[in-house]
Amino acid sequence: MTSFLNFDSLAAISSAGLPATDAKAVAAARARQGALTKPPGSLGRLEALAEFMAGWRGTAQPKIDKAQALVFAGNHGVCAQGINPFPQEVTAQMVANFQHGGAAINQLCAVAGADLTVVALDLERPTGDFTQGPAMSEAETLSALRRGAEAVDPSADVLILGEMGIGNSTVAAALGLAVCGGEAASWVGAGTGADAAGIAHKADVVTKAVSLHRDATGMGVLAALGGREQAAICGAVLAARAARIPVILDGFICTAAVAPLHGTDPAFLDHCIVGHASREPGHTRLCEALGKDPVLRMDMALGEGSGAALALNILRSALACHNGMATFAEAGVAGG
Amino acid sequence: MTSFLNFDSLAAISSAGLPATDAKAVAAARARQGALTKPPGSLGRLEALAEFMAGWRGTAQPKIDKAQALVFAGNHGVCAQGINPFPQEVTAQMVANFQHGGAAINQLCAVAGADLTVVALDLERPTGDFTQGPAMSEAETLSALRRGAEAVDPSADVLILGEMGIGNSTVAAALGLAVCGGEAASWVGAGTGADAAGIAHKADVVTKAVSLHRDATGMGVLAALGGREQAAICGAVLAARAARIPVILDGFICTAAVAPLHGTDPAFLDHCIVGHASREPGHTRLCEALGKDPVLRMDMALGEGSGAALALNILRSALACHNGMATFAEAGVAGG
Repeated sequence: MTSFLNFDSLAAISSAGLPATDAKAVAAARARQGALTKPPGSLGRLEALAEFMAGWRGTAQPKIDKAQALVFAGNHGVCAQGINPFPQEVTAQMVANFQHGGAAINQLCAVAGADLTVVALDLERPTGDFTQGPAMSEAETLSALRRGAEAVDPSADVLILGEMGIGNSTVAAALGLAVCGGEAASWVGAGTGADAAGIAHKADVVTKAVSLHRDATGMGVLAALGGREQAAICGAVLAARAARIPVILDGFICTAAVAPLHGTDPAFLDHCIVGHASREPGHTRLCEALGKDPVLRMDMALGEGSGAALALNILRSALACHNGMATFAEAGVAGG
Repeated sequence: MTSFLNFDSLAAISSAGLPATDAKAVAAARARQGALTKPPGSLGRLEALAEFMAGWRGTAQPKIDKAQALVFAGNHGVCAQGINPFPQEVTAQMVANFQHGGAAINQLCAVAGADLTVVALDLERPTGDFTQGPAMSEAETLSALRRGAEAVDPSADVLILGEMGIGNSTVAAALGLAVCGGEAASWVGAGTGADAAGIAHKADVVTKAVSLHRDATGMGVLAALGGREQAAICGAVLAARAARIPVILDGFICTAAVAPLHGTDPAFLDHCIVGHASREPGHTRLCEALGKDPVLRMDMALGEGSGAALALNILRSALACHNGMATFAEAGVAGG
């Protein structure tokens, strides 16, 4: 059996049986938007977001009673290539910071009203160095996909995804290049603080890795060049789809994590929006390739799900207008 | 006596005694940002917003305990020129909608945690048709400035400004053209729903009005081409400055309302940010002229303070990170 929730083999993950948006609910939401006390279309992106939520939740007036935020953390063998100025211990230290409430994502979830869960994936056991061989075996990849899927709360109304992993902007660049093509130099950026020489070195490492794994296809790209947090993000995206939960992806690394799903079938990501445009140069290119227009542009490049959590405020505002505004008829306003 | 809070005559409104940002508080906020558990600068605009708030509130760790939203409404004599498809009665109908909680601004203030006050300014008495003479006498202008200033709650930590007034996108275009120059066609847009012929007509009306009042300067431009809600917005901006309350301006019409202050002295607007980039084409141009980079880009064009209220969520998020995050030392994270 092949299906989008089959984690028995990477080849078995197909878009067969993928739930679609509810066109009737979208149409009903659009009709409601047209009746609300405002010039048609004047709420712009907020109207589009309300219709997007309506389609995936299957109701003309969707609500966000429960917002879940999941941050997955992993460590990466490619750090052996010296692609990051921070030591790998920082991944676990930041996970502890998340758990103690001291990171940006904790504050942003508190403001936006999201329940945060942090999932640390075998931090003491980094993936393989993908310049030498595959980052993960198929079994390791499937295990991480499963852990991501299992972390999703099926009663959530929206899911925010984020990540933490020293070295994973290099992983993201490799995934972007492998799925979307181009030159490595256009996929690498400063990450957590690389200088010009460091960025050039990252580009060399990425070029070498993508060349080594040029025969990988579909979800095989994830095993060859990804990491556990990337696989867990893919698993969470698939589990959310099964429960018709819309997903807010974060920035460059989170969006690159799902690039192998896009490479397998772009329809996998129909229920996903991108929360913000990262300052990492590869993100603009990646969002264009995926056909996603980020909700926010804040010149951020932190990860952790920070841009996605920030975008949740916009989504809540969109639904507050959609559900709470009076219609022209209700308010006795001319022009409806 | 001339001073920025002197509403005895328009000529007396000068930037003498204008409070400035607190450079020490900004430096202390910047130092704190550098110590927080994130790569330097990775929160982008959120860091800049925290430092902006620190400077105007005069403290390294500013908070938003009270956010005030003020929406001013007025009617415009230029509607006699047929520049808007909606009847002028809609202004009062929308004010009633605000008061009953049915408009977009009500929902957006509820999500963002702002207390909304709506001030209707002599709706039954539209301003003069500025294609025939000045929109307001000096006394009318000063009265509206005063009403705007008096509406500001001096205990607020941030002030959101918005407006409602059928026909006031034509008023905004006239103010933008008069203060910043250019061609009328680049200052007019669809407003609440003008078609191509309607937009061309708006441009003709604006060209004629600005030519008629070409001798107006400084705050005299506000009397010649503005309206009561524009003057009230200017008054509120000045009263907020006196209380060191940062201001979030809304879109095209709200930003154009303060253009005469910019024309008098750009320093008048140092404590103001622009909440969102409106879809109205004149807004991009106006923000560039004023040196303001809007916080959000949501393709909105509603007014009411809607984009400013939406941006309050971003400001709250910025301060939550600024005040709530652990430092590298506190969290025991390497690399600080």
